[in-house]
Amino acid sequence: MAEVPEGTNVSLIDVAPRDGLQNERTVVSTKTKLELIGRLLEAGLRRIEVASFVNPQRVPQMADAEALCAALPQVPDARYAGLVLNRRGFERAAATGRLHEISVVVPATDAFTARNQNTTVEDGVALAVEIGREAGRAGLRCTPTIAVAFGCPFEGAVDEERVAAIAARLAQTEPSELILADTIGVATPRQVASVIRAVRQRIGVSIPLRGHFHNTRNTAIANVYAAFEAGVTRFDASVGGVGGCPFAPAATGNVATEDVWYLFDRMDCATGVALQELVDTALWLGERLGRQLPGMVSRAGGFPQPRRA
Amino acid sequence: MAEVPEGTNVSLIDVAPRDGLQNERTVVSTKTKLELIGRLLEAGLRRIEVASFVNPQRVPQMADAEALCAALPQVPDARYAGLVLNRRGFERAAATGRLHEISVVVPATDAFTARNQNTTVEDGVALAVEIGREAGRAGLRCTPTIAVAFGCPFEGAVDEERVAAIAARLAQTEPSELILADTIGVATPRQVASVIRAVRQRIGVSIPLRGHFHNTRNTAIANVYAAFEAGVTRFDASVGGVGGCPFAPAATGNVATEDVWYLFDRMDCATGVALQELVDTALWLGERLGRQLPGMVSRAGGFPQPRRA
Repeated sequence: MAEVPEGTNVSLIDVAPRDGLQNERTVVSTKTKLELIGRLLEAGLRRIEVASFVNPQRVPQMADAEALCAALPQVPDARYAGLVLNRRGFERAAATGRLHEISVVVPATDAFTARNQNTTVEDGVALAVEIGREAGRAGLRCTPTIAVAFGCPFEGAVDEERVAAIAARLAQTEPSELILADTIGVATPRQVASVIRAVRQRIGVSIPLRGHFHNTRNTAIANVYAAFEAGVTRFDASVGGVGGCPFAPAATGNVATEDVWYLFDRMDCATGVALQELVDTALWLGERLGRQLPGMVSRAGGFPQPRRA
Repeated sequence: MAEVPEGTNVSLIDVAPRDGLQNERTVVSTKTKLELIGRLLEAGLRRIEVASFVNPQRVPQMADAEALCAALPQVPDARYAGLVLNRRGFERAAATGRLHEISVVVPATDAFTARNQNTTVEDGVALAVEIGREAGRAGLRCTPTIAVAFGCPFEGAVDEERVAAIAARLAQTEPSELILADTIGVATPRQVASVIRAVRQRIGVSIPLRGHFHNTRNTAIANVYAAFEAGVTRFDASVGGVGGCPFAPAATGNVATEDVWYLFDRMDCATGVALQELVDTALWLGERLGRQLPGMVSRAGGFPQPRRA
């Protein structure tokens, strides 16, 4: 596969308000979430996943999804995304009138789909196709996520042809992009390249792919790199690396936005994001959550500048 | 460059007793170091960097180098390495009679060399060549380390041609391998591939290269991967990711052995190392040091096994 040239623009989607905070024990106030979103916008992020529309009994961290959406800052070029698992969630998200994108989740294994959203892969895909079409009619972009695409906490290994077949079904609705998610942080870089090849063989090149990697086993930056080398230029990340993994309680979650930033900055790939504001936001969020967040560039700083003797 | 096949054997060198503990605030007793080394041997590690022979006033953590060497367990296929910065250090290391390898450090920048070992790159290279020859006469393998090969805390960017030129000089002594070290954890994967290409163009393919990466900015696993794809199959790592970075006090240090293990295990590359013993050692060492170590696979576990319904 042709190498992606240095200097390519890369799009970072910050998922801290959703995937990050959803996995924190502390329930963060709507006010603090709005300050987080404001700070991310200040740092230059223009795509932010702000909430999930799920059962508030199961996920109390996201119970304020509607209140949050109603108060989102109106910034002309900002795109806010909401995550949904089913029709009810989609209807709630669409009704806010404040979102630009809907990310409907389709896990790649039956065992995970049963536990996460009480259905089968087959029915989940059919539902995602329907929601994709309805989103289109409602003027919303649809960005389906194939969850546990690189490994499942219940089934173990996931066949890449299975992922490619799901991608092919989702591609029928012409989504604005398709997300390959390493939900539990087990992927390794050659596998990432291989899954992307398998998906591309099935869906062609017209639909952009987006990578969603967790750093649970320290492989996320390697996976971002491998995906980039395979042609992917859109990546989810969470400022500070906030979040966790419900399947590995002592482990970290999403890869940190500032760490992904560093990788691309060193390849002269523009992200439109300012490191200092990102680091400040990570440190601020760590204070709010009362713990040191796992993002590493926030602690270490960027590439050293030459010092005068 | 041809892709390295899956299933290639990979050699892991654990540097926790030296590079790890040298950067810990706590001075660890000789007894605990010996238990650490014993546990690493139990886990299947066969190459261990056990000490550095430096000024005990400057590095009190390594003041027991001779005592430690005298008590090293005698295991037929184990190879113990000592790190040296100068002739005095080499003489001390050779005098122990218990080491198999000498790693003499040659930083790639004058500013770092001045502060680390009070000399210039030019004089440092000349000294390393001399020490390499003397090591050979003493029946010791010599494994020179080019430090700050990917970036310097004082000079910033390091020209890869400069690294390649140093490698060419060191290659004259026919070392058993040559280590490229990202001493302060700033390297990124394309840069790693590029530096390896530059070095290979100067020294050919007969001397094996070995990668030494720090995870200070979360890029170490990506760098190991890029080096592997460029043909490198020997890597330094530190169990638990123990250690730190004197140039970024809040940051982590060496990449964790268990995290590197995971990367290679998922590519079916044998390391001869057992994960469970490695994880047990990381957790044990974290208890001894009174803190959670940064290695991630120790907290998250390996790749999930399928569960019966």
